[in-house]
Amino acid sequence: MADRPIKELNWKTPLEAAHKPTLDQLARTGVCGIIDPISPGRPPGSDTATLALLGYDALKVYSGRGALEALGSGVKVSKDDIAFRCNFATVNKDLVVLDRRANRIATEEAAKLAESLQKVRLEKPVRTSFLFKSTIQHRAALVLRGPGWSTAVSDSDPGEVGERVPEMRPLDKSREAVLTAEVVNKLSSEFRRVLEKHPVNRTRVERGEPPANMILFRGAGTVPQIEPLSKIYGIKAACVGATALVKGVCKAAGMELIHVPGATGTFQTDYSAKAKMAARALEQHDFVLLHVKAADVASHDRNVRQKIEVIERIDDMLSHLLKSIDINSVCVAVTADHTTSMLTGKHDGDPVPIVIAGPNVRSDDVAEFGERSCARGGMNRIRGLDLMPTLMNLLGKTRIFGA
Amino acid sequence: MADRPIKELNWKTPLEAAHKPTLDQLARTGVCGIIDPISPGRPPGSDTATLALLGYDALKVYSGRGALEALGSGVKVSKDDIAFRCNFATVNKDLVVLDRRANRIATEEAAKLAESLQKVRLEKPVRTSFLFKSTIQHRAALVLRGPGWSTAVSDSDPGEVGERVPEMRPLDKSREAVLTAEVVNKLSSEFRRVLEKHPVNRTRVERGEPPANMILFRGAGTVPQIEPLSKIYGIKAACVGATALVKGVCKAAGMELIHVPGATGTFQTDYSAKAKMAARALEQHDFVLLHVKAADVASHDRNVRQKIEVIERIDDMLSHLLKSIDINSVCVAVTADHTTSMLTGKHDGDPVPIVIAGPNVRSDDVAEFGERSCARGGMNRIRGLDLMPTLMNLLGKTRIFGA
Repeated sequence: MADRPIKELNWKTPLEAAHKPTLDQLARTGVCGIIDPISPGRPPGSDTATLALLGYDALKVYSGRGALEALGSGVKVSKDDIAFRCNFATVNKDLVVLDRRANRIATEEAAKLAESLQKVRLEKPVRTSFLFKSTIQHRAALVLRGPGWSTAVSDSDPGEVGERVPEMRPLDKSREAVLTAEVVNKLSSEFRRVLEKHPVNRTRVERGEPPANMILFRGAGTVPQIEPLSKIYGIKAACVGATALVKGVCKAAGMELIHVPGATGTFQTDYSAKAKMAARALEQHDFVLLHVKAADVASHDRNVRQKIEVIERIDDMLSHLLKSIDINSVCVAVTADHTTSMLTGKHDGDPVPIVIAGPNVRSDDVAEFGERSCARGGMNRIRGLDLMPTLMNLLGKTRIFGA
Repeated sequence: MADRPIKELNWKTPLEAAHKPTLDQLARTGVCGIIDPISPGRPPGSDTATLALLGYDALKVYSGRGALEALGSGVKVSKDDIAFRCNFATVNKDLVVLDRRANRIATEEAAKLAESLQKVRLEKPVRTSFLFKSTIQHRAALVLRGPGWSTAVSDSDPGEVGERVPEMRPLDKSREAVLTAEVVNKLSSEFRRVLEKHPVNRTRVERGEPPANMILFRGAGTVPQIEPLSKIYGIKAACVGATALVKGVCKAAGMELIHVPGATGTFQTDYSAKAKMAARALEQHDFVLLHVKAADVASHDRNVRQKIEVIERIDDMLSHLLKSIDINSVCVAVTADHTTSMLTGKHDGDPVPIVIAGPNVRSDDVAEFGERSCARGGMNRIRGLDLMPTLMNLLGKTRIFGA
């Protein structure tokens, strides 16, 4: 949601330019501020930023994206497992990438392909127990059941079209890293063999679509070893969201993942279904994280109008949410996990705005929810990992330090 | 540049009292804030503050002033060397200090004396390879070529007139500290012998000037082991400045030192030559640090009028600089490395003002560049070590943490 002022909007940000009466109302009644998700100037990923906003020191606990994304896709990842993020992609016979997302293959087609890949048996160099699961569109996860693996392996995803898919390399000299690279390279070629002759791909080619004939691997990671929110604050917490990565972080934090039919993680997500589900979840939980991905997607696509529209739909979603909850007993905090700039199309390190509204907050005189108006707010500037204690303090869920 | 409000200026600070249209213009177009160079209330040296403003954690990497000052004077200091800051001073026959700076001896005279001191040969207690080099006026550096030395030795500079020059003492019980103290004490007395009978000093006495008959040693240090800016951010960086200490920090950070004829580190420094050189340096570098020392000198001298004049000359210098660069593609940040107070004549721990102007910064409504006006700015309050990531983020030079 957060951005920089751009000429196209007469030096406003998309958030400043959007019509957002509910967010502005929250700003008027609450206390505002700005947050550095990690630290000033440092661009976070969605994973490290969400860890921080949930109160964890990402610099200490972050252990790669793969396992979080797998967790968030409903895959069980144990302490000793390692997991990779995967893409269904299209390559030519020389393994040069033609489409990193196989033309954003349909979720159903990818699921059929994944089912076949799961049947691959690997006995050499070691008997390998793995799980391969597709999630949304071209996205998938690979989990190697441990122990004995290492996350110190390079990616096979070259990140760009026109590049050749490289072999995965061990990034240190440990036996585990060497073995992990060897096993994933082997799986990669076995997967390719299965995909090449798969009926789903034959049908795609007949339809004139690029075949999903290669799996690209990246972001080897383990599940971060963190204390669940229930233990830290004594709360029951839940997440309403559709993005696997964010759901994975929430799962790692011990939160309940609430499925919302119609929530897709795309522009077409059902905002009002999410609002309803979040309000309902509040009846059974002390803390509910309601996450909308679409503003970030619009920024990555550098689509200003779409970003503004997403923000306006979020505003509308919040107006429904506020009607369904008792604002005299519930705190509502609105923020972004990072700045994604229209100018760069990438995550940037600028701070994000925050508003906290609810009973007894020290409200300020900020009257508009925006990157710059919130910078004048009563919370001043805090770090991401300080947000959760701030919220829990308002709920009386923090423990005294000292006596 | 930064200071406290004083009665003499009707409770304004020198910066607030100065006529500074360019700085105010930058404040109006940019984003303002305040910076704690190290942490709130902690007075930094120019060395630790500059390290912090370049993005390093001075609390972790600082290893004494001597080696930085030597580096900045063009002296090669290797990893195992230790270096001392030195003063040419005047003492009486009982080694009581009469003038810590030998009446700010001329740079040329000090150079002649240094040349003779370099010829001293020390064979006992160990054969010692050293370099003694004068820099500006009474300032000089001594480097002991290592390994085998320790920085855990006390100073021989008593810091005040009327005090006797003490022997240097080892500050721990290590063999290296004992040896280092012994060697520098030996050099000190050898140097004194050479200085006493030196023609330069005979001429000074004939002119009625105090002889530079003693070298005072302080600030034993090593070069901090830090990653160069080029490696951290992938940038080419340069420094335009005349002060050895600041140049030394820049050198340690892998920056190119740009010599400016006419830049002296004193009130008479050629401001417009510095501005021209900085603008030219920007053609070849991603980041240029333009440092002016004179405001600090005026504060140490507790000369209010001079401090205001220096600030006004800096403002004028900036107006020339801004004419030579394209503000649509360059970020300009103005700050101070610390507060030096008129009241105390010393470095204080108050925060310093900062403005960042340039394309797409989240400008605020601050209209004046000053300690108190900037405190209301959109950056709020950050630490020194967060400035460089903040600037590099605006240039797109920071790496994402996470995915």
